[in-house]
Amino acid sequence: MSKSIKNIGLFGFGQVGQGLYTVIQQSGYTGASIRKIVVKNKEKTRIVSSDLLGYDKNEILDDQDIDIIVEAIDDSKEAFNIVKAALEKKRLVVTSSKKMVAENFSELIELQKKHNATLLYEGSVCGSIPVIQLLDRYFRHEQLKSIQGIFNGTSNFILSRIFNENLHYEEALKQAQDLGFAESDPTNDVQAYDPKFKTVILAKHGFGVTLKPEEVINFGIDNFNAEDIRFAREHDFKLKVLATLIAEDGAVYAYVLPHFVGKNNKFYEIENEFNAVQIDAPYAGVQFYTGRGAGSLPTGLAVFNDVKDLVNGQHYAYEKSASADLTDETNLLLEIYFRYTDEKIKNGLNFISTSETDLPEGNQFIIGYVTLKNLKEQLPQIQSTGSVVIATGLRTLKSNQPLFTNHPFSTEEKTYV
Amino acid sequence: MSKSIKNIGLFGFGQVGQGLYTVIQQSGYTGASIRKIVVKNKEKTRIVSSDLLGYDKNEILDDQDIDIIVEAIDDSKEAFNIVKAALEKKRLVVTSSKKMVAENFSELIELQKKHNATLLYEGSVCGSIPVIQLLDRYFRHEQLKSIQGIFNGTSNFILSRIFNENLHYEEALKQAQDLGFAESDPTNDVQAYDPKFKTVILAKHGFGVTLKPEEVINFGIDNFNAEDIRFAREHDFKLKVLATLIAEDGAVYAYVLPHFVGKNNKFYEIENEFNAVQIDAPYAGVQFYTGRGAGSLPTGLAVFNDVKDLVNGQHYAYEKSASADLTDETNLLLEIYFRYTDEKIKNGLNFISTSETDLPEGNQFIIGYVTLKNLKEQLPQIQSTGSVVIATGLRTLKSNQPLFTNHPFSTEEKTYV
Repeated sequence: MSKSIKNIGLFGFGQVGQGLYTVIQQSGYTGASIRKIVVKNKEKTRIVSSDLLGYDKNEILDDQDIDIIVEAIDDSKEAFNIVKAALEKKRLVVTSSKKMVAENFSELIELQKKHNATLLYEGSVCGSIPVIQLLDRYFRHEQLKSIQGIFNGTSNFILSRIFNENLHYEEALKQAQDLGFAESDPTNDVQAYDPKFKTVILAKHGFGVTLKPEEVINFGIDNFNAEDIRFAREHDFKLKVLATLIAEDGAVYAYVLPHFVGKNNKFYEIENEFNAVQIDAPYAGVQFYTGRGAGSLPTGLAVFNDVKDLVNGQHYAYEKSASADLTDETNLLLEIYFRYTDEKIKNGLNFISTSETDLPEGNQFIIGYVTLKNLKEQLPQIQSTGSVVIATGLRTLKSNQPLFTNHPFSTEEKTYV
Repeated sequence: MSKSIKNIGLFGFGQVGQGLYTVIQQSGYTGASIRKIVVKNKEKTRIVSSDLLGYDKNEILDDQDIDIIVEAIDDSKEAFNIVKAALEKKRLVVTSSKKMVAENFSELIELQKKHNATLLYEGSVCGSIPVIQLLDRYFRHEQLKSIQGIFNGTSNFILSRIFNENLHYEEALKQAQDLGFAESDPTNDVQAYDPKFKTVILAKHGFGVTLKPEEVINFGIDNFNAEDIRFAREHDFKLKVLATLIAEDGAVYAYVLPHFVGKNNKFYEIENEFNAVQIDAPYAGVQFYTGRGAGSLPTGLAVFNDVKDLVNGQHYAYEKSASADLTDETNLLLEIYFRYTDEKIKNGLNFISTSETDLPEGNQFIIGYVTLKNLKEQLPQIQSTGSVVIATGLRTLKSNQPLFTNHPFSTEEKTYV
C-alpha cells in the first residue's frame, strides 16, 4: 500500500456508517476517504452522492483499489460472511459488530493469521472508550485482577429513567427506542446479550481467555417489577447491569448480571447512555474510564480510529494467553437478591447462606450465596418465570473474602479510590 | 534494528528506574531487556548485579548495542543533556521528566525531526493513565473542548489527609514525605509547578498549542490556613488542585489552581495519590479516566509501555496544530475565592462582580470574577504574602455562560455524566 490516501469500502449506512462518514468529513483527516458504500435498500434516501453507493458486496470485495473494508451492517451472519471474505482476500478490515466477533472469535483470529490480514473492532465494546486497545497494548503485559463495567448504554439509559424520573420500564424503553438507543426488538440490550458479547471480547484481550458466548451467564432488566425498584430505593441503591471478568484462584470467571450499587460505588453515578469500565491492575491501580457508550458519533469515532490504526499498520497483539478454568464454577459464590414465584427454582439454586423476607404481594425474595454453577443451570427457568436475580456480593469458596469491596452488603468499608 | 531482543540503557535507578526494572522482570516480556544502568552514586547498595551498573554516561551513549535509552534521573538539566545527546545519536529515547520536557518542548520536537530519532514520555503525565497516547492517537483528529484533571498525586494525597483525617498541612506533608510521595523540597508539588509542566505537555498533544511553563499560572496548597479549610467544610466542598486547558472563542487557555469541588463534581472522590483526567470531546462525550498518579510501579509501567512502543516503531504524531491566542487573557473570567492580607493586591485584581465577607481573625476574603490577565499579574504577590486563591467558577467575557457546569457556585444544575 504505497498510495498516500487509502480508499475505504463501507458496508452499511446506518447509525455506525453515518457516524464514521461524519467524523471523517469533520476531522480534516487526509489518510483515508470513503470510496464506496454498499447498502441493502435501494429505495432509501441517503445523505451522500449516489456515485458513492452500490448494492452488490462484490463492488467492494473485488475492487483492488479499496484498501480498508469497514463492515457496519445489522445482520451478524451476513457481517461474518463479508468479514471472512475480506480477510481471505488479505484485506484490512474494521467491524463494530460485537455479536459477530464474539460468536466467531477463534475463527476470526485464525483467518487473520492464515491470510496475514488484519481485523480491528474497537467500536464493538464501550463505544467511545478505547478499551480494547488499552487492554491489547497498554495492559498487554500486566496480569489483571478484574474488569468490570457498564457495557450497555440502552439498558443503562432505561434504568436511569426509572430511577431518576420514576418512569415505568415500558415508558423508559419507549423513550430509548424513540431516541434511537434501542432497536424495535430490544432483547439483546434488555436481556444483556449485548454486554455478554462484549465481555467475551474483553476476556480475550484482557486475560487471554477464549470464551464462547453461551458459557457466560447474562440476565437483564426486563423482569424487574415495582417491588424490586422499591427494595433498591429503600436501601439507597441504584440498579446497574455490570459485566464482570475476574481472575481468581488461577481461573477467569465471567458473568453479566444486574447489581445493586450503593453511593460508594463508582458505577452509581454513570447515567443514561454512558458506559464505564474499571480495570484493576497491580501496577496501575484501579483504572476507571467513562465515556459515551452508544450513538452514531461515539461509535463512528471508534471505527475511525480503527481505520487510522490500519493506515498506520497497527494490529492486535493477542499476546495474553490463559486457559479458562471455567469448569470449577462451584468455586465462585455470588451473593444474590432472588425474587421468585416458584419454590422449585429456589431449591435448585441451593442457597448456601440466606436471609429471607416475604414481600407484601405474596411474591418472595431471598438474599444469599449461590454457586455460579447453580445459577447458570437455573437461569433459563428464572428468566422464563419472570423471576429476578440481582447481584449483591461476590466471594470464592476457597478465600471466603469479598472479591469486590464496593458491593452494597460488603462488610469491608474500603473503596477503591 | 533487526535483533529480536532490544537492549535498554537506563539512566538513574531511583523510584522510576526501579519501577521499570521490576515491571520488566515480572512481565515476562521478551522484546527488550536492561543491559546497562548508569547511576551517580557509587556507594549506594543496589538490588541489581554490579555487572549491570556503570557510572559514566558514555557507557550508554556510546554503546552501539544499546537500542533504547531510558532517562530516569532527578536533575532536569542533566536529563536534557542526556536526552539531547541521545537524540543527536538518532536513538530511541524514553523520559518521564515532565519539567525537562515542558521546558525544552520545541527543541525536543525539533531534535526528533532533525535526527529522525524518537522520544516518548508517557510516564511524565498522570502516572499510570496513558493520557498522552490517548490524546496523540485516539483523539488526534477530534477538536477537544477541554482537558481538566488532578495531575499531582502528592498535593492530592496531602489534601485527602487534611479533609479525611483532619491533619494539619504540616503533618500531612510529613506523611507524604515518609511514604515517598513528596521530596524533601516539596515546592514543585505543593506550589503546583509539577502539574503545570504536565499541562504544557497535554496542551501540545491535546490542542496542538506550544506553551512555555512561565505562560501558565500555577498556585498550590501551601498557603491554606484553617479558615480556608473551614470555609470548604461548611459548604461541603473539598479542595482539589485542578489543571485546566480550555478551548474557547478560538483560543486555548491554561491554568493550574486549587478548586472548591462539590459532591456533584467527579473530582470530589479522587483521593490520595490517584490522578484523574477529564477530556471533553464532541464525539466521545466527556471521557473521565482515573488511576494511580504517583509511585514507582505506576510510573514504571508507563515507561515500560513507552519501551514497548519504541520496539514496535511507534512515535508521537504531533499532528494537531493551533496558534495559542494567549494574548487575550482579558477574555477569560475566573471566579475565585480570594483570602488576602493586603488591600493593594485585592485592588490590583480588579474584581468585576463580588460578594465580600469578613473572617473572624481580621483576615478578609472575597468571592468574585477576575480576568486571567489580572490574576496572572498579581499571583507572585499573592503567593509571597500568604494570601490564597481558590477557583470556584469560569466564564468568558464574550459568552457570559459558565464554561464548566460542575463548579460549586455554578447556577446550572447539569452534571456531565
